[in-house]
Amino acid sequence: MTLTAEDRARVLVEALPYIKRFHGQTVVVKLGGSAMNSKQETLLDVVLLRYVGLYPVLVHGGGPEITAMSERLGLKAEFLEGLRVTDADTMDVVKMVLTGKINPDLVATINRLGGQAVGMSGEDGPSIIAEASDPSLGFVGRVTQINAEPIQALINRGYIPVIASIGLGYDGHSYNINADTVAAEVAVGLGAAKLILLTDVEGVLGEEDKVVSQLSRADAERLLASGKVSGGMIPKVKACLRALDAVAQTHIIDGRTAHALLLELFTEAGIGTMVTP
Amino acid sequence: MTLTAEDRARVLVEALPYIKRFHGQTVVVKLGGSAMNSKQETLLDVVLLRYVGLYPVLVHGGGPEITAMSERLGLKAEFLEGLRVTDADTMDVVKMVLTGKINPDLVATINRLGGQAVGMSGEDGPSIIAEASDPSLGFVGRVTQINAEPIQALINRGYIPVIASIGLGYDGHSYNINADTVAAEVAVGLGAAKLILLTDVEGVLGEEDKVVSQLSRADAERLLASGKVSGGMIPKVKACLRALDAVAQTHIIDGRTAHALLLELFTEAGIGTMVTP
Amino acid sequence: MTLTAEDRARVLVEALPYIKRFHGQTVVVKLGGSAMNSKQETLLDVVLLRYVGLYPVLVHGGGPEITAMSERLGLKAEFLEGLRVTDADTMDVVKMVLTGKINPDLVATINRLGGQAVGMSGEDGPSIIAEASDPSLGFVGRVTQINAEPIQALINRGYIPVIASIGLGYDGHSYNINADTVAAEVAVGLGAAKLILLTDVEGVLGEEDKVVSQLSRADAERLLASGKVSGGMIPKVKACLRALDAVAQTHIIDGRTAHALLLELFTEAGIGTMVTP
Amino acid sequence: MTLTAEDRARVLVEALPYIKRFHGQTVVVKLGGSAMNSKQETLLDVVLLRYVGLYPVLVHGGGPEITAMSERLGLKAEFLEGLRVTDADTMDVVKMVLTGKINPDLVATINRLGGQAVGMSGEDGPSIIAEASDPSLGFVGRVTQINAEPIQALINRGYIPVIASIGLGYDGHSYNINADTVAAEVAVGLGAAKLILLTDVEGVLGEEDKVVSQLSRADAERLLASGKVSGGMIPKVKACLRALDAVAQTHIIDGRTAHALLLELFTEAGIGTMVTP
Amino acid sequence: MTLTAEDRARVLVEALPYIKRFHGQTVVVKLGGSAMNSKQETLLDVVLLRYVGLYPVLVHGGGPEITAMSERLGLKAEFLEGLRVTDADTMDVVKMVLTGKINPDLVATINRLGGQAVGMSGEDGPSIIAEASDPSLGFVGRVTQINAEPIQALINRGYIPVIASIGLGYDGHSYNINADTVAAEVAVGLGAAKLILLTDVEGVLGEEDKVVSQLSRADAERLLASGKVSGGMIPKVKACLRALDAVAQTHIIDGRTAHALLLELFTEAGIGTMVTP
Amino acid sequence: MTLTAEDRARVLVEALPYIKRFHGQTVVVKLGGSAMNSKQETLLDVVLLRYVGLYPVLVHGGGPEITAMSERLGLKAEFLEGLRVTDADTMDVVKMVLTGKINPDLVATINRLGGQAVGMSGEDGPSIIAEASDPSLGFVGRVTQINAEPIQALINRGYIPVIASIGLGYDGHSYNINADTVAAEVAVGLGAAKLILLTDVEGVLGEEDKVVSQLSRADAERLLASGKVSGGMIPKVKACLRALDAVAQTHIIDGRTAHALLLELFTEAGIGTMVTP
Repeated sequence: MTLTAEDRARVLVEALPYIKRFHGQTVVVKLGGSAMNSKQETLLDVVLLRYVGLYPVLVHGGGPEITAMSERLGLKAEFLEGLRVTDADTMDVVKMVLTGKINPDLVATINRLGGQAVGMSGEDGPSIIAEASDPSLGFVGRVTQINAEPIQALINRGYIPVIASIGLGYDGHSYNINADTVAAEVAVGLGAAKLILLTDVEGVLGEEDKVVSQLSRADAERLLASGKVSGGMIPKVKACLRALDAVAQTHIIDGRTAHALLLELFTEAGIGTMVTP
Repeated sequence: MTLTAEDRARVLVEALPYIKRFHGQTVVVKLGGSAMNSKQETLLDVVLLRYVGLYPVLVHGGGPEITAMSERLGLKAEFLEGLRVTDADTMDVVKMVLTGKINPDLVATINRLGGQAVGMSGEDGPSIIAEASDPSLGFVGRVTQINAEPIQALINRGYIPVIASIGLGYDGHSYNINADTVAAEVAVGLGAAKLILLTDVEGVLGEEDKVVSQLSRADAERLLASGKVSGGMIPKVKACLRALDAVAQTHIIDGRTAHALLLELFTEAGIGTMVTP
Repeated sequence: MTLTAEDRARVLVEALPYIKRFHGQTVVVKLGGSAMNSKQETLLDVVLLRYVGLYPVLVHGGGPEITAMSERLGLKAEFLEGLRVTDADTMDVVKMVLTGKINPDLVATINRLGGQAVGMSGEDGPSIIAEASDPSLGFVGRVTQINAEPIQALINRGYIPVIASIGLGYDGHSYNINADTVAAEVAVGLGAAKLILLTDVEGVLGEEDKVVSQLSRADAERLLASGKVSGGMIPKVKACLRALDAVAQTHIIDGRTAHALLLELFTEAGIGTMVTP
Repeated sequence: MTLTAEDRARVLVEALPYIKRFHGQTVVVKLGGSAMNSKQETLLDVVLLRYVGLYPVLVHGGGPEITAMSERLGLKAEFLEGLRVTDADTMDVVKMVLTGKINPDLVATINRLGGQAVGMSGEDGPSIIAEASDPSLGFVGRVTQINAEPIQALINRGYIPVIASIGLGYDGHSYNINADTVAAEVAVGLGAAKLILLTDVEGVLGEEDKVVSQLSRADAERLLASGKVSGGMIPKVKACLRALDAVAQTHIIDGRTAHALLLELFTEAGIGTMVTP
Repeated sequence: MTLTAEDRARVLVEALPYIKRFHGQTVVVKLGGSAMNSKQETLLDVVLLRYVGLYPVLVHGGGPEITAMSERLGLKAEFLEGLRVTDADTMDVVKMVLTGKINPDLVATINRLGGQAVGMSGEDGPSIIAEASDPSLGFVGRVTQINAEPIQALINRGYIPVIASIGLGYDGHSYNINADTVAAEVAVGLGAAKLILLTDVEGVLGEEDKVVSQLSRADAERLLASGKVSGGMIPKVKACLRALDAVAQTHIIDGRTAHALLLELFTEAGIGTMVTP
Repeated sequence: MTLTAEDRARVLVEALPYIKRFHGQTVVVKLGGSAMNSKQETLLDVVLLRYVGLYPVLVHGGGPEITAMSERLGLKAEFLEGLRVTDADTMDVVKMVLTGKINPDLVATINRLGGQAVGMSGEDGPSIIAEASDPSLGFVGRVTQINAEPIQALINRGYIPVIASIGLGYDGHSYNINADTVAAEVAVGLGAAKLILLTDVEGVLGEEDKVVSQLSRADAERLLASGKVSGGMIPKVKACLRALDAVAQTHIIDGRTAHALLLELFTEAGIGTMVTP
C-alpha cells in the first residue's frame, strides 16, 4: 500500500511530542535471548534514536551462544534457579563469547548502519564492580557498584556504548552477571529516563494469561509472589522494580516486532508491558 | 484509514537518512504571502525541525497586511516594478505591522506549540545593514551586509530566530527589504544548508507551463531572461540564485500543502522546485 | 565656562568609587511617559554604562503613542483606575506601537550611538509569562513568571536588551502590562543591583509637597495608604516596593534632567527619590 | 643488597630529564608473543607512566592463544609468509580470543594495579578501518585509515586505551591485522612521541649477529633487503620504518627483562634496538 | 569652585568615546624618575583604568633610589653614556631596590587604593630574557625575548602586573635593563594599544625649544640624529620608535601633572608628546 | 658503586605508590636557615615534583641575610623571644633582602633548572593579610587572612609560586612574618596535602634527646609545654600544629641531606619528624 503525503505527515507530526519529551535523555536498552533475531531493525532504531537527540545505551548478555560455545569446547552448562553456574573455564568462555563475539558484532553492525558505537564490558574503566552472588554458582556475580563515568564519557562524545554484562570484582576476578540486572543498574547509575528490556514474548502475562499493558509496583510484586511470573521473566520483572528506584519508565517489550523500539518510543501504540512506580 | 504499526515504522525509518543528513545544520525558511494561511502547520513543522536537531531560521515580510493597515490609516500603497514605494509614513506602518504584529504573532504561535522563538528585525544587533536600493522607491532597501553574530547567538542557545525583513542603514534610517532577498542573504551569512521559500503556487513553471521539479542555475537564468518567470516569482528565483553562492540547496515550495516543510525535508516525495548550482 | 584639567580630573576621580561599586552589575531602567523627551541623552548614558562595565536593561511602555495611534484608527481609549482597558483590537495596536515602533526606534538609536541593542518583547523566548489581571480590563495582564534566560543570554553576549512591556499568557493571548511593573519583575528575575524608573516629575512628594530624597519601605506604604501618592505614581512606588524583595536600590528619578542616569549613578548628587528596604 | 638514600636519590634525579622530556606525550606500546610472560611488570610500568604524566596506549595481538583455541575447536591454523590465513570461522576465534580473552585480561590487570584502562578493538568507534591485504589470506587485513578520535577521547579522560588489533572494513567484515602494524599506524594517527615494540629477543641482530643498539632508516632497509632480518622480526622493523614518518623514536626491546619500559624510558641504559629517522 | 550637574555630565559624556575606544585594551605605563613624586594620583588613575575595562601594565626602574642605596653601602655609581655600569655587587643592590623596595611599595599602594596588583620582575616566569648589552657595562642587559604568557595570565585574571625592569639571561645571570626599553618591549610583546612613558619634563622639545605635541617617526629620528634629543630623553624616544613596530600610539607625558593618565586617555586635552608611526 | 638495572627498576617501582598518592596535590615547602645551603639539590627536587604532577609551593624567610645587610647598613638587629624586632628602617631592609635578593635568586635558580617559578610576596594580590603581632616588636606581623586566589592562579597555570614571608596590613604597612607560620597558613589556605619545613637539624628531639620520627598532636603539645622543644624549633612545631587543622601530614626534616624532599616523599625511608593529627 502506498502511503499518501498526508499519512506520512501524520506519522511525523504524531512523533513530535515524543521526540520532544525524550530529547537529550538516556535510554538503556537490553538486548538478549531470541530478541537478537530482529537485530538489524533494532540496531537501526538505536542509530535513529541517536540522530534525533536521545542517548541510547545497549546492554547485552548472550546465553544461547555461550551454551553453544561451551558445548563445542566440551564444557557442560549447568543451571541453578535459571542462573548459569560458572566455573573458571566457563567464565573464560563467557568472556570470549560476550566481549569477543557478540559485543564486536553489535558494534560493527551499528557502525555500518551509520551510528558510532564503542563496545565495552563492565571490566573497562572498570564501570561495573561485582562480587560473587552465591558461592555455589562460581563466578556468577551481582553488581555492587556502577562507575558511570567511563560510560558517560562515551555518551558525551556522541558514541553509543554497547556493554557486555561482565563485572570486575575487587578480588581481581571477572564475574558473569545477568544482563537484565546489569541494564537496570546501569540505567540507575546513568539516571536514565527509560529502561527497555527486549524479550521474545509479547509481555508479562497477568491473571488470565493475557498480556498486561501496564503494571504497578504492587501488581508486579504480587505476580512475582504468586509465581505467576516465572522462569526467565523473573529477573526481568525484578530488574524493572530495581530500576524504578531512579528511572521513571521501565518496559518489557517484544523484540520480535520489527522496529519495536521506534514504535514504543515514538507512537501512541503501546507494545508489551510497562512497569510503573 | 488507520495506519498499521508497519506503516508507521516505515515512515519513521524512511525519515532517518534525511534527519541524519540535516542534523545540526541551519535551514532558512521564508514565510510570506498567502502561504501564511497554513501557518499553524508550518510553524509546527518548524518546532519539529528544532527538536530533531536542525536549526530553523524564519524570515518573513507581510505585504497584504501592510497594504491593509496603510489603507486603514489613509495612506496610498504605490508599487514600482513589484516593489512597494515606501515614504517615511509608510515605513512607520511597515515597521509596526512587521515587527509589531506579524513577528510577535509568529513568535507567540511557535512558543505556544512548544518551541522557543525570539523575534527580531534586522535592526536588532543590528544584524541587517541596508541602503536605499533606488531613490525613487524611498525607504526600500537592499542588503549591504549581514551581521550574523546576534542571529547565531540565538541559534546557539537553542532559540528559533524569527526575522522581520527590515534593515538599518548607516544613515540611521530603517529600510523595508524584500523578504525573499533577506532570506537569501541571511542563509548566506549563516552558512545555511538549505534555503526554502514558501509560496502560494506549486512551483516554478517551465516551458510548457508545467511545474519544474529541478532547475539548474543556467535554466533559472534562461527562464528569467525569457520572461517566463515573472511578477512575484522574479525575486524568489533571484534569491535562490544569490543563495547558491554559498548554500547548496534552495527550494521554492508550495506553502499551501499542509506540513510542506516536513515532507520536503524528510521524505523522498519532492514538492515544488529545487534550484541547484 | 571652560573646565580646567583639574576640574575634569576631579569629576573622573569622583566617579571612581561608583564605577567600581557597580562594575559587572545589572541595572534595569524603565523609560516611559514624557521622560522619553530627553531620549537621546538617556540612551547615550545607557551606552556609556555598558562601556564602563555595567549591564543596563531597558524596559519601556508607550502610553501616549498608543493613544494617538488608537485614535487615528478610530478606537476609543478607555481607562479603569489608571489602567488602559484593552480589547483585542486595542491589543493589536499596543503590540504594533510598542514592538513595531517604539522598541525598534530605541534599538536603532542605541545602535547608532555605538551600543549594541537587541529589542524584544516579553513574548520572545517567552521571557514574560502573564495572565489577565482583571476580566473587565480585557488583555491587561499581570506578570506570573519571568524567564530570565533569554534576557540573560543577550546580556552575557554584551547586548543591551530593550524590552517592550508585553507578556504571553498560557492561553496563547498577548497581554499589555504596566511597564513599571514589568521593570520591577525583570529586575527581580535578573537579580539586578538597581531599578531606576525614569519619570517626568522631580520625585515622590512627601507630607509637605516637597520631593523626598529617601523613602523607607514603611514610609512608602504609609504614603500609598494615605492617598498622598496617587495617579501614575502609584504603580511606580508599588514597583519599587515589589523590587525591594530582591533588589537593594530602587529609584524614581526625573528623566527630564539631561544625563540623569549618569548623575544618579556616578556622582554624589542624588536626584529624585530612592526607595530603600 | 640494600640501597642507600644516596643511591635512591641518584636514580630519582637521573630520571628527571626523561620524565620532563616525555611529560604529556603519548607512547604507544605493543605487547605480544612471549613478551606477554612478564606481563605483570610491564603493566605496572604502564600504570607508572600514566602517573608521571605520560599517556601510554597499548596494542596487542595474541598469536599463540589464537592457535591454541583454534586447535581446541578443531580448526587448522595455516600460515602464508608468517601471516595467519583467516577464514570466517577462524576470524570468529580471533575476535573471541583477542577481544574476549586477552583484551579483558589486560584491562582487568591494569585496573587491579591502580590504573584505569578501557579495552577496545579497532571496530569500536570505529577507530581502525581496514581492507583485505591479500585475497588468499582471507580476513587478514591492512590498515587503510586510523580514526584517532575515540582513542584520543579516552586518553583525554585519563584512561589507558588497550587496543586489540582488529579492524573494520567498509564491507562490514572484521579483519585480523598484524599487531606491530596496528601499533605503528596508531602511533602515527595519535602523533605519538614514541613507539615501543616489546618482543622476546634482545633486539635486532646486525651483520655479526650482535644486537645493534641503534639503526638508521637506511641500515634497517639494508638489513631487510639482505634477509638478515627475517621471520617475525620483519613486520616489527617495517612497523618502525612506517612509524618514522611521523614518530621520532621507535624501539624494539626485550620484553623479557623486568620493567623494560621503565628502564628504556627513564634511565640512560639503552635496551634493545632503536630505529631512528 | 563648585561644579554644576551639567559640568559633571559634560565631563563624563566627553570621556565616553575614549572609554569606548580603549575598552578591553592593554596600556603599558612606565613610571620612573621624579615622575614617581605624584605616585599616589598616578596609581589611582591606574586603578580607575582597570575599573573602566582597560588593562594597565606598569613597568618601573628606580635610578635615584639605587644610587642612594649604593652610596649607603659604599658602592660607587658609574655611568657610561647615561647607562649605569653594573658589577655583581651593584646588581645585587639593583635587585634589592627594584624588586625589594620600589616594586612592593607600588603593589601595596595599588592594593590599598582598591586595585589588585601583583608584582613581578622579568625573572619571574621568566618573562624577560636578556643578554649583556655591552661587556664594559657589566650586568646591564638588553631584551632578547619577551615571554608574555605569565604577564598575560595575570592580566586575564584581572590583576595589574607591576614589572621591575630586570631580565634573566640564559647564562643564569640577572640583568639590569633600562625601564623605558623594557616598557616598549613589553608593550610589543603584549600587543598593547598604547605605551605611555611618564617623565618629569613637559614633553619632547622641538627645534625652537618648545614642546612638540605630535612627532612623526621621521621627525623623531631627525631630532635624535641632530642631538636635539639628548640625555635621558634618548632612551625614551628610542623606546617609542621601537614600540611603533607594533603599538599604534606612544606617548611621553609629564608625570608631574596630577592624574596625567586620566587626562591623556579620557579628555581631548593632549599633554606631552605623542610619537606616531 | 654501579647500580644494576634491577636496582634502578626497584627504586622507580617503589616510588610509584607515592607518586600516585600525591599526584595533583599541593605541597607547601618552607626553606630557611642554613637549610638554604643545599639549595641547588632542594630546588632540583622541587622542579622534579612539578614534573611528576605535584604542585609545590615554596615559602622562605631569610634571617641570616637580613642580619648581614642590617649590619652592613649600620642597623642593629634586636630579638625578642626569638622574633626580630622590626622598626621602619629594618622593615625596608627585610623587604629588600627577602623580595629583592633571596626571592629572585630562588626564582632564577628554579627557572635555570627547568622549572617555571614566579616570585611573590604576601603583598602581591595581596595574598597575605597581616596585623602587628605585638606593638613592642614593631612591624612584626601575624597572619589574619590568606587570600589563596593569586597563589592558586599561578599553580593552575603550572608555575611554582615562591613566596617571601611578608604580609600587607589593612593599615597599609608591610609586616615581617615568621616564615614557618606563613608556610602553615598558606598550606591551610591552599588545602595542601603536605607541609614540609626544612631545617638544619635532624628533627624534633624527644625525651631522651633522640630524634622522634613521629609525633602526635598531644605529644607535640607536651614537648612544647615541658620546654623540651625550644628556640627556633618552637615556631616550627607550632606551625605544624596549626597546619594540622586542615593539612593531614606535616613534617620537620633535615634540609642538609641532599634531595631530602625526594627521599621524604617518594621512598619508604622516613627522615626527620612527622607531626600527625
